[in-house]
Amino acid sequence: MTASHEFELIEWIQTRCPVPPHDLLSIGDDAAVVPPQLDKELLLATDMLMEGTHFTFPPATPELAGRKALAVNLSDIAAMGGVPHSALVSLALPRNRGPEFAKAVMQGLIDLAQEFRTEIIGGDTNSWDGPLVINVALMGTASRTHSIKRSNARAGDWIFVTGDLGGSLTSHHLTFTPRVKEAAILKETVSLHAMIDVSDGLASDLQHILNESGVGAVIQSHQIPISQCLSTELSHAERLQKALSDGEDFELLFTVSPEDGQRLLDQNPLPIPLTHIGEITGEQGAKLQQPDGSMTALESTGWKHQF
Amino acid sequence: MTASHEFELIEWIQTRCPVPPHDLLSIGDDAAVVPPQLDKELLLATDMLMEGTHFTFPPATPELAGRKALAVNLSDIAAMGGVPHSALVSLALPRNRGPEFAKAVMQGLIDLAQEFRTEIIGGDTNSWDGPLVINVALMGTASRTHSIKRSNARAGDWIFVTGDLGGSLTSHHLTFTPRVKEAAILKETVSLHAMIDVSDGLASDLQHILNESGVGAVIQSHQIPISQCLSTELSHAERLQKALSDGEDFELLFTVSPEDGQRLLDQNPLPIPLTHIGEITGEQGAKLQQPDGSMTALESTGWKHQF
Repeated sequence: MTASHEFELIEWIQTRCPVPPHDLLSIGDDAAVVPPQLDKELLLATDMLMEGTHFTFPPATPELAGRKALAVNLSDIAAMGGVPHSALVSLALPRNRGPEFAKAVMQGLIDLAQEFRTEIIGGDTNSWDGPLVINVALMGTASRTHSIKRSNARAGDWIFVTGDLGGSLTSHHLTFTPRVKEAAILKETVSLHAMIDVSDGLASDLQHILNESGVGAVIQSHQIPISQCLSTELSHAERLQKALSDGEDFELLFTVSPEDGQRLLDQNPLPIPLTHIGEITGEQGAKLQQPDGSMTALESTGWKHQF
Repeated sequence: MTASHEFELIEWIQTRCPVPPHDLLSIGDDAAVVPPQLDKELLLATDMLMEGTHFTFPPATPELAGRKALAVNLSDIAAMGGVPHSALVSLALPRNRGPEFAKAVMQGLIDLAQEFRTEIIGGDTNSWDGPLVINVALMGTASRTHSIKRSNARAGDWIFVTGDLGGSLTSHHLTFTPRVKEAAILKETVSLHAMIDVSDGLASDLQHILNESGVGAVIQSHQIPISQCLSTELSHAERLQKALSDGEDFELLFTVSPEDGQRLLDQNPLPIPLTHIGEITGEQGAKLQQPDGSMTALESTGWKHQF
């Protein structure tokens, strides 16, 4: 990448990002401008992905790296019960990989943005001799006072998780579908008390809900939806442990009242599995209950560090 | 940096970032929540700074690197005539430099945020074996339809620049003051037609205004405010060239009507120099006029690539 390559890249991005609504300033000023949205809360998420940490080439392609950088942010907005809106993209591009590599990164990002009706409204491109770094800052909206926090789980709530868990890093961490549509359906169907996306591993992300809500939980070990992606060479105990602690599943973990929980069990409104894995308790701490009734502490061993 | 160091860092950040207003969700959910601001446009800027490209240690300290990452974004919001509001901070932290280094980066950023009444409302910390990378996404507000674009310069406008130009990379690129207050004063005093911050060099940034506005300009070479920071061993022509093309001055370049321009000349409302450097013309292209009246093309040789 040379300076002229970077200018060419920006022109290329501008031609490929659909023209935003007339009252939204397009790419090419000091800052992007978003009109006020009455009665909406604005949601803001950001994630930085680094080559060698969050993806490697291969198995990642530049398109998949760009895709993932947006997907992890879409997952954050989904976990707040929000609708994604517009994204700012910052790139540190490896100079020796050239402009086609950079365009491929952006193409992966642009394709997913279009799928989720998200505008790319600005960004910053840089070249250096280091590896690829992508930062996305994503905005979304939620109806005022209706974003779903981590802090509202209540004793007696039923705990659910979408999809299945474990083995993402060897299978779908580059290709997962952010649960934006699923979160919207759940929000319409039931009263979501607390929600988070499983980025850090079920045990760790559950702990975030428990800490923020000042409650505890009992999880039924035999109810954990263990992913088919996990090697059958592993023992059941090993596969359960991975389902509880592997990161990057990006499924939704949420709590609802028992009445709403029963409604979800009676008729799953989602096109993907939905599993009742346990209950919120008044007593602090997370416990794992075996089929024989015995309990052990559910230990969190997460590794992803947003604030 | 280990995982436990990162958790400790996040707790440290949380204790040092002032509690946001009651209706703004604090650090610690999937996304930050900002309440709607009626009759305000939301401004969004982002910049990624990489060690070895935008700063090196020394002469930079970790505090100054953090400071600069926010300062360049504050400068973007200033150039839109906006008031900065809240920031998301993403970090790729060199593992071998340890947690004190990471805290120092954040301290530099937090101190500048407090000076400009900007809340740090969220972010993402990561460790790797690469150099330091800092991304800031900054939100601000402007009165509805009153953000200052690059696209509204008109033939006959007078062109002004704040402060002086050139030599930033060997002097003040780590310590410059973003012109947020100055932009607010100018906006109250006159009708700003077009404005940009000089991040890329005067000639390049002027060209952005000309391109977006579909106009041209004549700049008076003897009016360029050449920085005292430039070595006196350089010839006048060399110093002029650096004032025209060095990046990272982060001064404001703007256009106003001749009547407003005369008011600024009669009484400078700013605590820093303000110089009338030329005029916008109906004829496209940027020209540099010498004291003897001869004209040459003003070539842009910028290197910073936001979109």
